[in-house]
Amino acid sequence: MRQDRILLAHGSGGTMMRELIEQVFVAEFADDILSRLDDAASLEVPPGRLAFSTDTYVVNPVFFPGGDIGRLAVCGTVNDVATAGARPLYLSVGFVLEEGFAMDDLERILVSMRDAAAEAGVRIVTGDTKVVEKGHGDGIFINTAGVGVIREGVDLSGANARHGDKVLLSGTLGDHGIAVVSTREGLQFSTDIRSDAAPLSALVHAVLDASPDTRCFRDPTRGGLASTLNEIAGASGVSITVEETAVPVHEQVRGASEMLGYDVFQVANEGKMVAVVPAEQAEAALAAMRGAPYGEDAAIIGEVAEEPAGRVYVHTSFGARRIMDMLVGEQLPRIC
Amino acid sequence: MRQDRILLAHGSGGTMMRELIEQVFVAEFADDILSRLDDAASLEVPPGRLAFSTDTYVVNPVFFPGGDIGRLAVCGTVNDVATAGARPLYLSVGFVLEEGFAMDDLERILVSMRDAAAEAGVRIVTGDTKVVEKGHGDGIFINTAGVGVIREGVDLSGANARHGDKVLLSGTLGDHGIAVVSTREGLQFSTDIRSDAAPLSALVHAVLDASPDTRCFRDPTRGGLASTLNEIAGASGVSITVEETAVPVHEQVRGASEMLGYDVFQVANEGKMVAVVPAEQAEAALAAMRGAPYGEDAAIIGEVAEEPAGRVYVHTSFGARRIMDMLVGEQLPRIC
Repeated sequence: MRQDRILLAHGSGGTMMRELIEQVFVAEFADDILSRLDDAASLEVPPGRLAFSTDTYVVNPVFFPGGDIGRLAVCGTVNDVATAGARPLYLSVGFVLEEGFAMDDLERILVSMRDAAAEAGVRIVTGDTKVVEKGHGDGIFINTAGVGVIREGVDLSGANARHGDKVLLSGTLGDHGIAVVSTREGLQFSTDIRSDAAPLSALVHAVLDASPDTRCFRDPTRGGLASTLNEIAGASGVSITVEETAVPVHEQVRGASEMLGYDVFQVANEGKMVAVVPAEQAEAALAAMRGAPYGEDAAIIGEVAEEPAGRVYVHTSFGARRIMDMLVGEQLPRIC
Repeated sequence: MRQDRILLAHGSGGTMMRELIEQVFVAEFADDILSRLDDAASLEVPPGRLAFSTDTYVVNPVFFPGGDIGRLAVCGTVNDVATAGARPLYLSVGFVLEEGFAMDDLERILVSMRDAAAEAGVRIVTGDTKVVEKGHGDGIFINTAGVGVIREGVDLSGANARHGDKVLLSGTLGDHGIAVVSTREGLQFSTDIRSDAAPLSALVHAVLDASPDTRCFRDPTRGGLASTLNEIAGASGVSITVEETAVPVHEQVRGASEMLGYDVFQVANEGKMVAVVPAEQAEAALAAMRGAPYGEDAAIIGEVAEEPAGRVYVHTSFGARRIMDMLVGEQLPRIC
């Protein structure tokens, strides 16, 4: 018998859990490895090094313009795996459901995960469901872990950036963070601000085709571009300078960030990729990004210098230079 | 500066999250892949099929006799990967921390994870940390996903059990479930009831060495032995009969189960393995189990027959036969 809401019994290991798994999860995801319901999935993988990554998604609210927690949970992990130069192949999914969560919402989230997985070319092959008592969770938390096979010949690391390299960004900054916070706070900046949540593995591989000596990829999620570039500058022992006017930002997102007092460089993105490439391959990499799905607004936004090691600067539209700091405390909790 | 408690800022993607990761997680786990802090770990794996599994752990309380949520999170996923006949190699870890969670408790849990991983021979290579506001989580939830390489030549599936096969259990039933519920409810049955949380990959491979035609392994966690055997009986289209007197159960656990009104066959275990093996390899498999870590109390507890398909019976100590049902609703929420 179908229940309208999640009950504790759906996490008990008994027949109600079995029914939830078979009639909801397995039915929506429709994968023949998953549907074996073995304790572990048995996978065929091509030879090569593996990329392995995980993220738990606790975004609040779970539905927002441009996506939901399900799309985020698939795209976020797909993108992390892709940053290693890998083709994401398989995902695991772990749910923590709060007693009372609406079954319709769960199903809507599963459809969204299925569609995002199909778009990204990954299979959801193994999973787990836990239920916590009302008041001890928050609707739904989703963990995904992803496995992919790393393309031969690539050597990507945040420690690889070198003097003269160019920094590419695949599109506009801040869309996800502002879309989520606007929904959460009931702010009506614009109906045009939508999360950018998207799978970027095709874009990563297009860039690698065009720029085989790419130094690294990073997706600027929590902490935004500022965290990503500071991490690369620190790991590589270089400085990075970003041209503010070169960074694509939607007008509405820029306006909302200013009004809310956020630095758009620190706002989370869920469908953007940063690539550091050698200068002589930068134009080819840019063209590849622009030709790839979700890359039409890509731009070369900055470059790498030797000194001072670990520093990131913004060359502002007024001609000044300021430090692009990492966020210290919290800015937007539960953004992903 | 070290904080005594988790703050929202520890999940923000900024410098405080960075410090938590570097000074706590990376310091405790001390793995050179993890410490690169790339978005995805890059792994060398031997050729072969991969086993991939995930579980999220929400056990309440997080510390209990015989273990804690950290040991559970490592052992549980290691055991799921091992059921595929794989050698678990790598784990991912995803934390959902509630604002205000004590840093000392987190560190104690990390030490426990590190020790369990060392014992199991797996490496924690990639991770993620989210923080939710006070009242929107419950201290700590931990997801782990595990990857292992499946031993060549094994063909394990819950659908493989055949008429005449023997069912082996690696030790006493119910220890974990009763230890956790006793702690949670403040019951003092006995100081001897301790969780059995343990990594069983060495035991699985010892059985495979002795019984190369093993049909399947399952670890009887949530839902207990009853869920495990009913799943095997259903998937294989066979019946299974368990000899009640052959099933090892600690006296204190039996007493506590009776007092609480639990069927010990439905109580969760976290360090036990069920194996179905061909009759002619059963004695060798049993000897191997008994010689392996955590297998000293192993027993042959039942056998497989053709009819009626999907049914599990207990042949009781009084000579009667009853159905071993799966749990329907919830019995012990938050047991793992």
